[in-house]
Amino acid sequence: MHKVIFDTDPGVDDAMALLFLHRHPEVELLGVTTVFGNASIENTTRNALFLREAFGIDAPVARGAGTPYDPARIPHAYPVMVHGENGLGDIPIPDTPPSRPLDHEDAAQFIIDTVHAHPGEVSVVAVGRMTNLANALRRDPAIAGLVKQVVIMGGSFHVPGNVSPAAEANIHGDPEAADAVTTAPWKLTVIGLDVTGQTVMTRAELAALSDAGGSDLALLDALSQDYIRFYGHLLEDGMLVHDTCACVALVRPDLFQTVQGAVRVVCGGIADGQTILKPAGRRFPPGEWDGLPEQTVAVGVAASAVMALITETLARAQ
Amino acid sequence: MHKVIFDTDPGVDDAMALLFLHRHPEVELLGVTTVFGNASIENTTRNALFLREAFGIDAPVARGAGTPYDPARIPHAYPVMVHGENGLGDIPIPDTPPSRPLDHEDAAQFIIDTVHAHPGEVSVVAVGRMTNLANALRRDPAIAGLVKQVVIMGGSFHVPGNVSPAAEANIHGDPEAADAVTTAPWKLTVIGLDVTGQTVMTRAELAALSDAGGSDLALLDALSQDYIRFYGHLLEDGMLVHDTCACVALVRPDLFQTVQGAVRVVCGGIADGQTILKPAGRRFPPGEWDGLPEQTVAVGVAASAVMALITETLARAQ
Ligand SMILES: [Ca+2]
Ligand SMILES: [Ca+2]
Repeated sequence: MHKVIFDTDPGVDDAMALLFLHRHPEVELLGVTTVFGNASIENTTRNALFLREAFGIDAPVARGAGTPYDPARIPHAYPVMVHGENGLGDIPIPDTPPSRPLDHEDAAQFIIDTVHAHPGEVSVVAVGRMTNLANALRRDPAIAGLVKQVVIMGGSFHVPGNVSPAAEANIHGDPEAADAVTTAPWKLTVIGLDVTGQTVMTRAELAALSDAGGSDLALLDALSQDYIRFYGHLLEDGMLVHDTCACVALVRPDLFQTVQGAVRVVCGGIADGQTILKPAGRRFPPGEWDGLPEQTVAVGVAASAVMALITETLARAQ
Repeated sequence: MHKVIFDTDPGVDDAMALLFLHRHPEVELLGVTTVFGNASIENTTRNALFLREAFGIDAPVARGAGTPYDPARIPHAYPVMVHGENGLGDIPIPDTPPSRPLDHEDAAQFIIDTVHAHPGEVSVVAVGRMTNLANALRRDPAIAGLVKQVVIMGGSFHVPGNVSPAAEANIHGDPEAADAVTTAPWKLTVIGLDVTGQTVMTRAELAALSDAGGSDLALLDALSQDYIRFYGHLLEDGMLVHDTCACVALVRPDLFQTVQGAVRVVCGGIADGQTILKPAGRRFPPGEWDGLPEQTVAVGVAASAVMALITETLARAQ
């Protein structure tokens, strides 16, 4: 059983990832922490509460960061052309507050407290900007030695980025936070575009899930339509399931081909937000990657097995 | 017939590349321009004159830049652990001046004048820091429309760098110059570590060439021994022939698999000197690669065919 904190900025692909974690039999969701990214912190938190109710999830929700880790960093605009103005593909979301209100006002503290309550047992799966994790580390560096592992969706290593030729959106959204997270002394797995760029769910596959499933899958289908339209420039008729792919890496790491090495994030300049790996064992002159922990970076994936697991898990009876 | 200006910082692999160009039947060497990089400009120029005499080459030699394109850039130390203190693997080089002295004191002007003298006909093969080319462009931007093509050895795209996890030595040595060269409106082919990392000459192959050849191949063998020793951390018992690989791309482009796209060079920060490609046709938000010429970047190579051509060409009778 994986005790999981899900750190998320819902977000269309976040919604699928949340339902995947909820449905997966080996996952116990300890909490959902929200972060700005695909939309403002107000919207991503509202969306998390909305999805919790719609999916029938029990876990607490904690509101996280709405501004970058480094106060000097000027925030980027929200990607409304990808996730809609409301962060969930502009499906109608009720104005009425959800029946269960927000549980915690401070996601970083929730992460710290939860990790201390279950030493060595908590996996954090972070699929938004890395701000909450970096804030938690800054406030209590001891958590690095107390978490079981951290799995992040972010970065690109041997393929181009998606918000610039150098950078992937989650990392680009708060590079200083990401650099704190990749260089911390914990067991980190990085699931970037090298692998999520291969995990495609087609419009037809999602529709078939919706047809055979309940209201939660119908909701997932509805909120994903604009996202699929956005991906028309890159894919035939489908979407990349970035965040769910990172959740699969938690429960089925054997489906990923990985390399080890120190990872740094570029802060500033034309490569702002780029992730750069120093492969373990490669020799370089003294430099900025020296003495850092070696993390696990995914460079290959059994994509059809990953997609089969996602489809099967989403379709499970409650 | 390719009319070639060879811009070089000899340098061990530069020496092999010079002999390759001299021996290749489809190359007419119009001139050799020197640049700082593997050693100081005094040493690389002295080495070029020494190699010209040793190899029996007729072409003029022009001395180039000894400091970076941007005067604010602090130069890196010379890589004495790779190319030796003298730039040619610390083989003894006579103190006596070569019988034929330096022909030109200003490589950038030599490039400009030679390109104007043969409009549309000159190929520049640049296998050191890009300083001379950038200086020539700054002084006379018209040369971009007058050269036939530029082939450079430099950069890394889908593989790590060699002087840092991000950067390759020729680009890292003068990033501002390289960015000027990759973004200029000329036909540019970039031969980086993605391909030169695959073109290996073993110690035994070089020894066999030396045994069967004349004094020039014996010299090449002698000056390469320390370089092969350096590569022991990466290769079994051989050397990467970076610069000769770029020369092969001039005469046999069909041996390379390439992609098109705008190329920028990172200037400053932990990724200093990294080359970043925006693949042609990929859509990104507005950014630093917009409106730039699409260049040709080598991403694959028929390595054994390249090495066979190199061996065969070096072994040709005079
Ligand atoms: Ca997300
Ligand atoms: Ca060179």
